[in-house]
Amino acid sequence: MGMMLTMRNDPLNDVAMSEPEEASKMREFSLEEVKSSKRKILVIYKNDVFDITSFVNAHPGGKDKIMLAKGSFVEPYWSYYPQHTNNKYVVDSVLKPMKIGTLKESDRDSAPPAPNPYVSDPVRSHSLRIITPTPCNAETTSEGLENWLTDSDDFYVRNHGPVPLASEKDSWSINLFSSPLKVSEIKSLAKSGKLSEISVTATMQCGGNRRGYYRKKANGTQWGHGAISNARWKGVRVRDLMEHLDVKEEGKWLNALSEDGTLVSIPRHKVEDVNGDVILAYEMNGEDIPRDHGYPVRLVVPGYVGVRNVKWVKKVWFGEEVSSMWQTGLAYKILPTDVDSKKVEKVDLSKYKGMMEMPVTSVIRKAVVGKDGVLRCEGFAWSGGGRGIHRVDISVDGGSSWHCVDLKEGKDQPPHKAWAWTFWEAEVDVKDVNVEEVVVKAVDVAGNSQPSEGKDIWNVRGLGNNSWHYKRIDREDDWDNSRFG
Amino acid sequence: MGMMLTMRNDPLNDVAMSEPEEASKMREFSLEEVKSSKRKILVIYKNDVFDITSFVNAHPGGKDKIMLAKGSFVEPYWSYYPQHTNNKYVVDSVLKPMKIGTLKESDRDSAPPAPNPYVSDPVRSHSLRIITPTPCNAETTSEGLENWLTDSDDFYVRNHGPVPLASEKDSWSINLFSSPLKVSEIKSLAKSGKLSEISVTATMQCGGNRRGYYRKKANGTQWGHGAISNARWKGVRVRDLMEHLDVKEEGKWLNALSEDGTLVSIPRHKVEDVNGDVILAYEMNGEDIPRDHGYPVRLVVPGYVGVRNVKWVKKVWFGEEVSSMWQTGLAYKILPTDVDSKKVEKVDLSKYKGMMEMPVTSVIRKAVVGKDGVLRCEGFAWSGGGRGIHRVDISVDGGSSWHCVDLKEGKDQPPHKAWAWTFWEAEVDVKDVNVEEVVVKAVDVAGNSQPSEGKDIWNVRGLGNNSWHYKRIDREDDWDNSRFG
Repeated sequence: MGMMLTMRNDPLNDVAMSEPEEASKMREFSLEEVKSSKRKILVIYKNDVFDITSFVNAHPGGKDKIMLAKGSFVEPYWSYYPQHTNNKYVVDSVLKPMKIGTLKESDRDSAPPAPNPYVSDPVRSHSLRIITPTPCNAETTSEGLENWLTDSDDFYVRNHGPVPLASEKDSWSINLFSSPLKVSEIKSLAKSGKLSEISVTATMQCGGNRRGYYRKKANGTQWGHGAISNARWKGVRVRDLMEHLDVKEEGKWLNALSEDGTLVSIPRHKVEDVNGDVILAYEMNGEDIPRDHGYPVRLVVPGYVGVRNVKWVKKVWFGEEVSSMWQTGLAYKILPTDVDSKKVEKVDLSKYKGMMEMPVTSVIRKAVVGKDGVLRCEGFAWSGGGRGIHRVDISVDGGSSWHCVDLKEGKDQPPHKAWAWTFWEAEVDVKDVNVEEVVVKAVDVAGNSQPSEGKDIWNVRGLGNNSWHYKRIDREDDWDNSRFG
Repeated sequence: MGMMLTMRNDPLNDVAMSEPEEASKMREFSLEEVKSSKRKILVIYKNDVFDITSFVNAHPGGKDKIMLAKGSFVEPYWSYYPQHTNNKYVVDSVLKPMKIGTLKESDRDSAPPAPNPYVSDPVRSHSLRIITPTPCNAETTSEGLENWLTDSDDFYVRNHGPVPLASEKDSWSINLFSSPLKVSEIKSLAKSGKLSEISVTATMQCGGNRRGYYRKKANGTQWGHGAISNARWKGVRVRDLMEHLDVKEEGKWLNALSEDGTLVSIPRHKVEDVNGDVILAYEMNGEDIPRDHGYPVRLVVPGYVGVRNVKWVKKVWFGEEVSSMWQTGLAYKILPTDVDSKKVEKVDLSKYKGMMEMPVTSVIRKAVVGKDGVLRCEGFAWSGGGRGIHRVDISVDGGSSWHCVDLKEGKDQPPHKAWAWTFWEAEVDVKDVNVEEVVVKAVDVAGNSQPSEGKDIWNVRGLGNNSWHYKRIDREDDWDNSRFG
């Protein structure tokens, strides 16, 4: 029961609530009846019985997950994914219309007690801004963004459920193209030189970074601009593993399954490209990957949206079609601007591809006017697909005129595989100007630029917000205020 | 003496004219003195003598070209490149300050008669809109843009000089990585199966397409939206030729030299990428390549700006550095918005890379309201680097609300090598709306979108204009009016 359910519509909007069937048609069920039903798939929630037969294939979390609750109570499963119970829409608009009766009095409240699946989640650094604790969604703060290489403690966290309890790292086994391979074996191959061990410094960004800056609310975690971080990953190329294992599997998509159930697909050409740098990583910033970031092994897909960088990898194989809801569902598709939460149910999702690379973006991390009347401003710029940053401009008059800034760390990356962000800084004399805010825009090496306004790229899932970033100018060293634009 | 000279500054703007040296310091030269000067490089124009020693390395057309005129009259050379004489700036601001004297009366007007180098240019189709005849710059009209595969006759022409008089096509020899190879030999290798013959359908676009739509004038050919076309090219991959010839040359750049002197560089990874599809083409749309488009052989670099698709290829080799002015000069660099024709002389050009891939763009070809009150609208969308089109939206209220259109031919290309444009069409009921114009914007598979206004991406060379495209709606079948936006 994945968290995606919450994304199918916006519970806060004025969705017309469907009425449940009339009470007269309802009947009583025994727990045994619910369990043994063959024609219909029945589940129980709060002692009501629901026929979810027609819904299982549409379950945003996947059919496999919802089928775990078949013939029984959903509560133990929902405790893993509080998005269900926290969301009035899920209960009132999705579940209620499927109600067909109630549970016999003698069988009521026999659901097994719900464990707290998050009890084993790692302790997070105080330097993160926690947006939702369970599952953990936490963004990097301005302080964390100060370092070109983000400290692992400061690296943004975007989990879809509890952090898996990994076994001893070396005995963690991955089903790699049908060959079981332990992390220790992969490392041995690398250390012995049979496989090249490579390091990739890559910026990862959540597809929903800056979602909270859209003026029109979009459903999902209300990120500021900190769902982006940069780390050095070490591991082996998947293409080298394929060669080593003499993989003959066909199929246009590399599938990767996480221990937490996340299943995503990467186009084969990205994996096979010698410049694609898709690696199975077992180190982050020179140490074991922290549990929040995929311990013990993570698929790193530089230049692609965060979700494709699967954590806690258990299985990797090729397939001909993309089938998981992480690709075919609504969650990571940039839908047309006119598709709001009312229209979204009618959209033919197959017409739109899931996000892979991401658009050019830039952010002002800090903007301070000193006593000398000089504005000192710094931040980062990044583009997906490894496209380097061509230029960054800032404006202190709302975009009427622009100053080209100095590019710093990251500017010397190869322009076709600039996986990491580029830092920038600028000084502008504003002694004679009454400035309150500064705005930034970047251009990547393909000439792509950022749209001026979020409204022109708004989409119901709030993805890919790369509109110009505005920041209120501080007179002192306090730069936590951003204008939502 | 390349045409680039005209691009170094805007002759129509208020450039302060430098004063020539005072007449008192001038002296008389004999033709013999000019010819035999060793310490200085002297040339003659209109019987005045100029010391161009300090300028030759800065000549936008390259040192080789300007040195042809050393010790003699520039007129015969300038007749090839009328940009020089047509441009007051070149004569008054570049040349005049270098004047050091006049030619002795008895030697005056002894310049050889200037031939008309364009006399052998091919006859062009009436379906093209000729912007400049010599060199030919001509754009595809709305009628020509109607076909997904552009007729060769309708394909836009962007030449930098006269069209070379090619020898018999089969005996045309190319110096390929130091091996002389005739076109006939390359074809034989392909036909015999020693090399794969491949076809690539690729859209080419001039870096300055839609330059004329910038409200603030940018120097260069004032293209509308027709400096873009789509053709099917046949030939052999350069990477396959490298393998066949066992090329050991090192260097990060593939250089390609045209018979007309154009010299450009392509990053090596693009050439080596099996999905890069860089070919030496000897057919266009199933026939010999027309002379205007590179007969007999053209380097086709799909997804890259037009100029990198070198015509009339004579020599191909690898090098460690980019040296030609087609890369390092101003001509194909997107400079900051604040760099106008006054500031451009002070810009450190080495900070900005030359264009390679291009940004996502879209154009409305036709927008007609029928008697039934339905607006029928069609056009194309394209993005550089092979990035497919994710979505196209149109608006009939200036961008307040959007309609997602239907994608047509081109939509099924692989999203990572969608070299050709995607056509689209839409029908919008406008019976109850008072509409005068329609506007389009596209999103590519990397989530890149188009900026709403040209002013936000304006640059002194007028490159990469991918701002939203506006089109006045016609009530009848007459769609030649475009709002310049």
